[in-house]
Amino acid sequence: MRTLIRNFFICVVVTIISASVILEDYERNRNSLLEEENVHALGGKLQLDSEEAILNKILKQLKEAEVDESFKNPNRFNFSKHYFTYRDEISNSKVYQIIKRMPKGGALHVHGTLMLGADYLLNLTYQDHLYTCYTDDVFELQFSDAIPQRHCPVKWTLLTELRRVSDDVKAFDAAIKQHFTIYSEAQEDIDIIWERFEKACYVIKSLILYRPVREKFLYDSLKRFYNDNVMYIELRSGLHSLYELDGTQHERMYMVKLYQNITKKFKQDYPDFIGIKLIVTKHRGSDIEQIRQTLDFARQIKREVPEMFAGFDLVGQEDKGKPLVDFLPALLEAKEEINFYFHCGETNWFGMATDENLVDAVLLGSKRIGHGYALTKHPTLMATVYKKGIAVEVNVLSNAVLSLVHDVRNHPLAVFLALDLPVVLSSDDPGVWGAEPLAHDFYISFVGVASKHADLRTLKQLALNSIKYSALDNNEKERSL
Amino acid sequence: MRTLIRNFFICVVVTIISASVILEDYERNRNSLLEEENVHALGGKLQLDSEEAILNKILKQLKEAEVDESFKNPNRFNFSKHYFTYRDEISNSKVYQIIKRMPKGGALHVHGTLMLGADYLLNLTYQDHLYTCYTDDVFELQFSDAIPQRHCPVKWTLLTELRRVSDDVKAFDAAIKQHFTIYSEAQEDIDIIWERFEKACYVIKSLILYRPVREKFLYDSLKRFYNDNVMYIELRSGLHSLYELDGTQHERMYMVKLYQNITKKFKQDYPDFIGIKLIVTKHRGSDIEQIRQTLDFARQIKREVPEMFAGFDLVGQEDKGKPLVDFLPALLEAKEEINFYFHCGETNWFGMATDENLVDAVLLGSKRIGHGYALTKHPTLMATVYKKGIAVEVNVLSNAVLSLVHDVRNHPLAVFLALDLPVVLSSDDPGVWGAEPLAHDFYISFVGVASKHADLRTLKQLALNSIKYSALDNNEKERSL
Repeated sequence: MRTLIRNFFICVVVTIISASVILEDYERNRNSLLEEENVHALGGKLQLDSEEAILNKILKQLKEAEVDESFKNPNRFNFSKHYFTYRDEISNSKVYQIIKRMPKGGALHVHGTLMLGADYLLNLTYQDHLYTCYTDDVFELQFSDAIPQRHCPVKWTLLTELRRVSDDVKAFDAAIKQHFTIYSEAQEDIDIIWERFEKACYVIKSLILYRPVREKFLYDSLKRFYNDNVMYIELRSGLHSLYELDGTQHERMYMVKLYQNITKKFKQDYPDFIGIKLIVTKHRGSDIEQIRQTLDFARQIKREVPEMFAGFDLVGQEDKGKPLVDFLPALLEAKEEINFYFHCGETNWFGMATDENLVDAVLLGSKRIGHGYALTKHPTLMATVYKKGIAVEVNVLSNAVLSLVHDVRNHPLAVFLALDLPVVLSSDDPGVWGAEPLAHDFYISFVGVASKHADLRTLKQLALNSIKYSALDNNEKERSL
Repeated sequence: MRTLIRNFFICVVVTIISASVILEDYERNRNSLLEEENVHALGGKLQLDSEEAILNKILKQLKEAEVDESFKNPNRFNFSKHYFTYRDEISNSKVYQIIKRMPKGGALHVHGTLMLGADYLLNLTYQDHLYTCYTDDVFELQFSDAIPQRHCPVKWTLLTELRRVSDDVKAFDAAIKQHFTIYSEAQEDIDIIWERFEKACYVIKSLILYRPVREKFLYDSLKRFYNDNVMYIELRSGLHSLYELDGTQHERMYMVKLYQNITKKFKQDYPDFIGIKLIVTKHRGSDIEQIRQTLDFARQIKREVPEMFAGFDLVGQEDKGKPLVDFLPALLEAKEEINFYFHCGETNWFGMATDENLVDAVLLGSKRIGHGYALTKHPTLMATVYKKGIAVEVNVLSNAVLSLVHDVRNHPLAVFLALDLPVVLSSDDPGVWGAEPLAHDFYISFVGVASKHADLRTLKQLALNSIKYSALDNNEKERSL
């Protein structure tokens, strides 16, 4: 009987021990698998110094608290909803306040005319000599010392004058502001939102093609990005002709020089700002001859103002424009001289022409790819992008606002981060949706899209990537880092 | 001068020829890259026989026409919108009509009580002896030969009687139907839609726990799936106790036998139907002892009715329930005897417990994974799933309706297909959202999610996968194929 009891006890103890060994083994495997995921993710191999480690501890606690809070109480801060529903709450986030102050390196995917918001633009309309052709359907703007001669269904009037005679200046200004933004409560279908977006671009452009206004606009754009701790910008620009009050049109190279001069002035005022470079763009609705001419213009800039030149790109709603393959002869001719930074795969249409722009961007040797939203659907290309270090310029908020994705947690950036693809975060056109220059995109990517485990190393790697994959030369890169 | 002209011509001709050589080279590279993508995608290596090739040609033309049409005219058929906005149009699609008639193999992720729609369930409420406790907030159902004794804030009344005295039978029935579906025009937030979903599940269950009704319900479920060309089903079921009119409760094993008998009867009527197997489920809100008991019950089924048994799973809204890791001791004990088919990663919360259920499902040796929606965020796990042949049970419509994803083109299935992960398509709870048993999921996956280039081989491979990765034994699989 005693032996029996002893054996029984031994049996129970052995069972408990072996169960706990199994459990321990399991947990070891589990932890090492999770750790492997962290190490292989973007930033996972970075070492933090002791100061950074302290900050990281605080940041992680704050982030976990925010994620847990929004998990428990989705009414409070809900990434499944449209950005506009929580945009104005972001500044209350402690994580955001840290990110705001953090150095972010460069913004490599920004359109030059869309860096400042509706309030700023409204202010510009208080300037003298601004005529408008303004009806329910039309809103044209032109600075001029005499009544513009272009067609207008009503008559051209000074905007200041219209405002003066309006019953309600506040309502008048609110209506004007509407033309400078695509802010709206509803998530709209992609074609509708793009139509509104392109209208806003048109109006904004017409306001800032006036030379003195553009000078101010550019300086203030740099200032705003600088205040967001962005130290370097690669601007996509069509480099259209600027005009003077008397109607004089400048040649296009004038704009390049203007960019150069204003940046020089800005750097005198803020010596730690690194600078800007230009990516010359052409609308993808163009014909191949227009593309050739723009490429020639790009060559000219590269020859005459090399320090300002980054490369070439095509712009406009990708689904509606011509695919890269339509311009192959011109692009292949220029390939050895001009660096490409192609928008590609900014689409949900898998297997269609826009989607396959990804293939052409890679085959044409694009230095980076703009958006690359559809890239996860192309594993072969993902492997190439990884191997060759072709950075993906990710603009989460742009993709959300322009209706590619509703819940940002479904943004493919999550996959890119997990795979440690060479990602840079940018903001595309933050002015048009009232985002901060880069801090909103960083915040939402970090708290909304990335893993809960992603920490300071992710943020640091993203900032480092923005220098590493920039068009800066090696000396400039070293100085910047 | 002549030499000059000749040289000039030679130069031009050489330039043209070398440009065309470059272009040809480029196009060769491009085509081979695109072809490589196709070959590596799910189904890409399948050979079609000559009859299939003819069908494929037709199918491809029809599909391309539909995709192009919806690209050009997004108001017509728009995958960026909610499924409910186009659900009733799907039957007009020619591609759908082909898919509807196509053999689809098995449906491996279906909840046993949610296979039939609101119209069918409404019809059941016309049966005798159905009492209801019905107020604005409460809707309870119970078949009984006497007034039920359970609490009811009003009084239990025969539903047929309530209907008889109602002013408007149509409105009365419409109101009843509302309880059996989560159909609604708006996309709702995940927690809200899950609350409605779980309410519907509760009401439906209370209707079909009555033994004779359940017999009919099961037979008719099989019939409906069979008519959709589904030849085999793995049913997830909690195997609750059925009751009789006099209140007698059957033991739970009775339900297993009922499944067996009804399936036998169905196979007599439709001999080409392969059969069903059961995945025993327990709610993930349970405690570990309840899980142990269910696992014991699973062992009993495996022992007593092995041909009906597939394995074990946990159910309920994953984000709100306990993670797998909470049940580790019980699951590790059962691991060698019981096959697991775990729901996991049915979430948008990257790096949180639900997301990490993916890790545990894989480490616990789950034979397949249910949903695996978050899998693309875990490249290491994806590689394991691929290597080990752990099939992913994808339910696109379920994920759309239950608010994980808005635009189905953002569903990770697109990535799974591109990577040739072992995918099986299923429909989860088609009755609750009024979908066809499997044809809607197949159609939307094929036309909405997969590449435009995906063709009959994709569909065929998906059907083959549903047998290959089923719980059928090798003999059964061979017969089925």
